[in-house]
Amino acid sequence: MIIDVHGHYTTAPQALAEWRKRQIAGINEPSQKPRASDLLITDAEIRETIEENQLAQMKRRGSDLTIFSPRASFMAHHVGDFEVSSTWAAICNELCYRVSELFPDHFVPAAMLPQSPGVAPETCVPELVKCVEQYGAVAINLNPDPSGGRWTSPPLTDRHWYPIYEAMVEYDIPAMIHVSTSDNPCFHTTGAHYINADTTAVMQLIQGDLFRDFPTLRFVIPHGGGAAPYHWGRYRGLAQELSKPPLTEHLLKNVFFDTCVYHQPGIDLLTDVLPVGNILFASEMIGAVRGIDPDTGHYYDDTKRYIEASELTPLQKRLIYEGNARSVYPRLDAALKQRGR
Amino acid sequence: MIIDVHGHYTTAPQALAEWRKRQIAGINEPSQKPRASDLLITDAEIRETIEENQLAQMKRRGSDLTIFSPRASFMAHHVGDFEVSSTWAAICNELCYRVSELFPDHFVPAAMLPQSPGVAPETCVPELVKCVEQYGAVAINLNPDPSGGRWTSPPLTDRHWYPIYEAMVEYDIPAMIHVSTSDNPCFHTTGAHYINADTTAVMQLIQGDLFRDFPTLRFVIPHGGGAAPYHWGRYRGLAQELSKPPLTEHLLKNVFFDTCVYHQPGIDLLTDVLPVGNILFASEMIGAVRGIDPDTGHYYDDTKRYIEASELTPLQKRLIYEGNARSVYPRLDAALKQRGR
Repeated sequence: MIIDVHGHYTTAPQALAEWRKRQIAGINEPSQKPRASDLLITDAEIRETIEENQLAQMKRRGSDLTIFSPRASFMAHHVGDFEVSSTWAAICNELCYRVSELFPDHFVPAAMLPQSPGVAPETCVPELVKCVEQYGAVAINLNPDPSGGRWTSPPLTDRHWYPIYEAMVEYDIPAMIHVSTSDNPCFHTTGAHYINADTTAVMQLIQGDLFRDFPTLRFVIPHGGGAAPYHWGRYRGLAQELSKPPLTEHLLKNVFFDTCVYHQPGIDLLTDVLPVGNILFASEMIGAVRGIDPDTGHYYDDTKRYIEASELTPLQKRLIYEGNARSVYPRLDAALKQRGR
Repeated sequence: MIIDVHGHYTTAPQALAEWRKRQIAGINEPSQKPRASDLLITDAEIRETIEENQLAQMKRRGSDLTIFSPRASFMAHHVGDFEVSSTWAAICNELCYRVSELFPDHFVPAAMLPQSPGVAPETCVPELVKCVEQYGAVAINLNPDPSGGRWTSPPLTDRHWYPIYEAMVEYDIPAMIHVSTSDNPCFHTTGAHYINADTTAVMQLIQGDLFRDFPTLRFVIPHGGGAAPYHWGRYRGLAQELSKPPLTEHLLKNVFFDTCVYHQPGIDLLTDVLPVGNILFASEMIGAVRGIDPDTGHYYDDTKRYIEASELTPLQKRLIYEGNARSVYPRLDAALKQRGR
């Protein structure tokens, strides 16, 4: 089985974006504010958006199951207050749940959180609990910068975030560390802000000792870990200067990297530098880079091709495709086993 | 000849840091404010700091000449106002000039600019002119984020920066895009802020069309280009979605990457992904990562070893070590030729 740990519902019916537009308009003009119940999306509409897009590509490329969360760039936690984020997260999470109910063999939900800049993270716990208990979510996406490129929250190692970590540990779910759209003109959302956030998160975790407090906490760093694997020597050296244990001890028992790196040399470096047990197959399809690479004739984000063409052994590939995901997402493993998979 | 395009005076005599401390204290208590003439550093002191550190390492590792600029993390443009930055830049640039006068065979200066958040970049032009005309500076370091991790300036493609580009074109000097210390607790200076800035700069240049306005402008992206080479497929794909020409056209006539990547797989990826003509030898020694890699027994930042061990041909290595630097820094080439080198 091939599990893609990083998919977003980027193709949700247009009504969702329209509802959100009204919600944002309602921040300044409360008369415009829509009710959650104003959003009407039928099962048929959901089926169509999935069958024609993500599922079609999964079948074409040969992956079986996607851990599916709301569109990352649409989370936009910097917009409005907690109530705005809360209503929006509930709607988006419910949609991903419906996808997983309509396509139980192919999609399993992961939850976005109703984060809001300056609001205590514990406010997100009820949504997390609901998504795990009622929707079968196997993970969350945690935004280390709900300000959208202003970076006003404390580092991930700060006690500020502990209430979320406590809930993650209780439910034994990992978090993908994933920012949302950039509200800062310096940072292109998918070309700079996403990658910078990945790099920033890795360095924050190197600087701190978070996993001493939470030995079973697990993070997935998307987009191949940002710059970290390419600069692994720098990070090993910086850990050394900070008198931290080797990264294999200090980081790699708790931190995992996905394969959203869109060319062969990048995947080759990732799989060369990091232990195979820390690498999780993912494509973020349909996501940031939707085109076809003229050099190869294939989709940039068809990351399975790069894994296939790498020098990994068949056993290593199976770990990256399936085994590691089952370990990092135990609720996924349990759900699969319950279905005899 | 082996030219290292990225060295900072990180080992300047202690008196410099002490003067700076007094200058910062003087921002709030003008009675504390030191005069520039209060800083007394003898030639013997400079000689000692260089001979025992950078020059000793250059001889040990086998590089000949370093393009030498003030310590990047000490630029700290976010501290104080333009007058503070201006006095500080003048002092730091003069010190690098003195190094180049004391060791003319081994060091050539590059200038830092007296940038200050919210102050128009044209205010930096007089310092640039002085450094080129009087000190023989062959390049500048340009900080895309003088706020120190708040990212409050416009992107590098904005007209805001054009006065500096006009001076660069006039003098035919490149700029290394190099941030300074991070004032934001989210960003470790050398582990996150530096690398993020490199990545951010590359993406800003992809989004814009700066080199249409300045066809001869040249930027050097340090630290191996941040995350860009590792994610080159992503950047090619994003350029395609933005309807830009291929990156070979759109970026690589004007943008160059140094080799400050501190492990073999990173250098192998860099030299595999980018045309050899866009790669400039550099180590940033003595800089961010000063330790010895226990896996190799050699300094992490001894980047020459990685170039030597790569699959590059001898001709390619010579371009990376010398030829490309002579093209990208024509004033360096002219100065060398004048000395018969």
